Amino acid sequence: MSLQRDMEEIGLKARTAARKVARLGTGKKNDALIKMAELLIAKADYLKAENAKDLDVAKDNGISSAMLNRLTLSDKVINGMAEGLREVAALPDPVGEVTGIKKRPNGLQVGRMRIPLGVIGIIYESRPNVTADAAGLCLKSGNAVILRGGSEAIHSNLAVASVLNEAAKAVGIPEGAIQVVSTTERGAIEELLKLEESIDVIIPRGGEGLIRFVVEKSKIPVIKHYKGVCHVYIDGAADEDKAVAIAVNAKVQRPGVCNSMETLLVDKAIAGSFLPKVYEKYKEAGVEVRGCVETKKILSDIEDAVETDWGEEFLELILAVKVVDGMEEAIAHIEKYGSLHTESIITEDYTQAKHFVEGVNSSTVMVNASTRFSDGFELGLGAEIGISTTKLHAFGPMGLESLTTEKFIVYGEGQIRE
Amino acid sequence: MSLQRDMEEIGLKARTAARKVARLGTGKKNDALIKMAELLIAKADYLKAENAKDLDVAKDNGISSAMLNRLTLSDKVINGMAEGLREVAALPDPVGEVTGIKKRPNGLQVGRMRIPLGVIGIIYESRPNVTADAAGLCLKSGNAVILRGGSEAIHSNLAVASVLNEAAKAVGIPEGAIQVVSTTERGAIEELLKLEESIDVIIPRGGEGLIRFVVEKSKIPVIKHYKGVCHVYIDGAADEDKAVAIAVNAKVQRPGVCNSMETLLVDKAIAGSFLPKVYEKYKEAGVEVRGCVETKKILSDIEDAVETDWGEEFLELILAVKVVDGMEEAIAHIEKYGSLHTESIITEDYTQAKHFVEGVNSSTVMVNASTRFSDGFELGLGAEIGISTTKLHAFGPMGLESLTTEKFIVYGEGQIRE
Repeated sequence: MSLQRDMEEIGLKARTAARKVARLGTGKKNDALIKMAELLIAKADYLKAENAKDLDVAKDNGISSAMLNRLTLSDKVINGMAEGLREVAALPDPVGEVTGIKKRPNGLQVGRMRIPLGVIGIIYESRPNVTADAAGLCLKSGNAVILRGGSEAIHSNLAVASVLNEAAKAVGIPEGAIQVVSTTERGAIEELLKLEESIDVIIPRGGEGLIRFVVEKSKIPVIKHYKGVCHVYIDGAADEDKAVAIAVNAKVQRPGVCNSMETLLVDKAIAGSFLPKVYEKYKEAGVEVRGCVETKKILSDIEDAVETDWGEEFLELILAVKVVDGMEEAIAHIEKYGSLHTESIITEDYTQAKHFVEGVNSSTVMVNASTRFSDGFELGLGAEIGISTTKLHAFGPMGLESLTTEKFIVYGEGQIRE
Repeated sequence: MSLQRDMEEIGLKARTAARKVARLGTGKKNDALIKMAELLIAKADYLKAENAKDLDVAKDNGISSAMLNRLTLSDKVINGMAEGLREVAALPDPVGEVTGIKKRPNGLQVGRMRIPLGVIGIIYESRPNVTADAAGLCLKSGNAVILRGGSEAIHSNLAVASVLNEAAKAVGIPEGAIQVVSTTERGAIEELLKLEESIDVIIPRGGEGLIRFVVEKSKIPVIKHYKGVCHVYIDGAADEDKAVAIAVNAKVQRPGVCNSMETLLVDKAIAGSFLPKVYEKYKEAGVEVRGCVETKKILSDIEDAVETDWGEEFLELILAVKVVDGMEEAIAHIEKYGSLHTESIITEDYTQAKHFVEGVNSSTVMVNASTRFSDGFELGLGAEIGISTTKLHAFGPMGLESLTTEKFIVYGEGQIRE
């Protein structure tokens, strides 16, 4: 069969399954998630053997040790997948929640009921544990899912999916609820992205290149996360101890992730006092600091920041630092160079904090906290399917609720329109 | 200048304005809306003179009287625009609403704040009053708007926009908040649809052809409303008087709109009694009834329903009728042929009503009410910018809230991540 027909068949199977998955009871979905967790652990040897095939190919291709690490299904990663599924089972079921019922003048009661989106397409790279994480979240939220991982992890992804489906079948989850695309042909993604009748939303997880490719080709709505260029603004009224602790934590605690800080903005009123203190800590942590002209007047031995450093997602121990003339300049800088991910103000001034929170429309805006808290678990969503940096449907970290929508429900007693 | 550069300039102007509009106070936005209403009435003669230019061209082109009617800016239509703007001024401002603040174990307070989407693109046909309606809703929700109406209404749309902008300027609304594309070249739409950096969402309002064109060409997320194929299901446990009244109202009260009924599904348990009663009323109202084989056994003098009648949006006094073997067959029919718009069950049976509401995932699901109530005003949204029949971001009638999103807000006191 052709690639196009293969993908169309996967889409139709998912659409058919989605109607049944949407009506599954919470108990049955939780039973399946717990059974999946058990079976992943019971079949760890099988998973590791299949994973070894991917690792062998990867080593032959000479991929980096960081990539190899991401690709590996160790016992720790397998236990993590199982634990993740159990945590999702423990979360409240978003489906069926009814809110805001109000009575209209004609007696109609109008409210909203939360329902699944239908069929979710996940396109991802490298980490085979995404297969279990995403499948669990989609099932719990009543959706069917089509998973398309990278070719470098194909044996691992198919093995994880076969274990999940064995558990799903044992519990009576409809066939087709969880599907992994088994072909590694690049064209399969393009065919998937045409299936607007079968797939309700595409969530790509990976580098900016993958995401731009998906947006370019897709006829289906895409929830996007291009990059995380997070800013911390040290206000003139900051508590300097908090400011130093947060500016260090946001940069060095885990520099390779999207919610780490990439640019530090410092009010000129506090720069002379604050910058030398934080710079000591940055030197200890091995952070390369690139500063604007004003920063260099205070920290003479740092690198020059060039135009491309503003808005750059370094993802390593490099930091751009700019001295600004008050909060409005900081906000203007964030608007010009930011990625709508996460920004934090450090201040003890009530009005400054209020204006920053109201004036910055990134997906997460913080006061006196490290940008590293910007993820679904830390913000209390219980889980995370991704982070959206575009405003439609979801903005910021996405939990189970982001995989659902609301329909209107109307209870009448024979009303007709005059 | 080229069309591409013209559109890019409009986009950039809107993006710049959007940052300022997002921070406008509610009072200023309401002042502008009320001033706009006053000025539309004060300048009615100017509007009618400009509208006459469009009407002359339309008459020369021999367009239908229905189209001509839609295109006309009568005093009634102008008063309606003004009244609409005043109603929007009276609605609560969705921007800045904070919900769900919860305390995390580490003391962080996490909640969400409602914010504007940014820049809204509206692409519409025929009715020049959409210019005022859409501009008012976008302004109240803190967004900048780019309006692109049909070439047949270009003089009318530009005249309405110039009046709105005169009022906006007088009150101090940022320039560029409301823009109408002044060129009528078809290519302008395609250029607009490429501006994903400047426009956050596109809302097309018009026929299915326009909407499919926009979806096909757009790199920007589109909120779609293809069509309204609404079903009423008469359950075996229906109150026949309510059933007749609703089945008649849903079809005949205003057949040309998307929330009128197109297919009537009748449980076989009640068909023999119900169908002759409702058919009498349909005959009086001039409805052409097309029935399935079982329907024809009861109503012998009606037309045969053919396969293409199921799922057809007649938009006139034609109705497809099918006898089904219980609610599950009705739901399966709706899933196969429906458009996710509005479906209603007529029943006195509690469990049947509960299962229908839970089992049908159209954007509006009703019990014992006419589908004609499915619009933003009737459902209590206070206004309507359109109806979405796809599930992402908004599903069903869209009010002010659909023109906004939520960001996360986090209040800390120096928290860093371990």
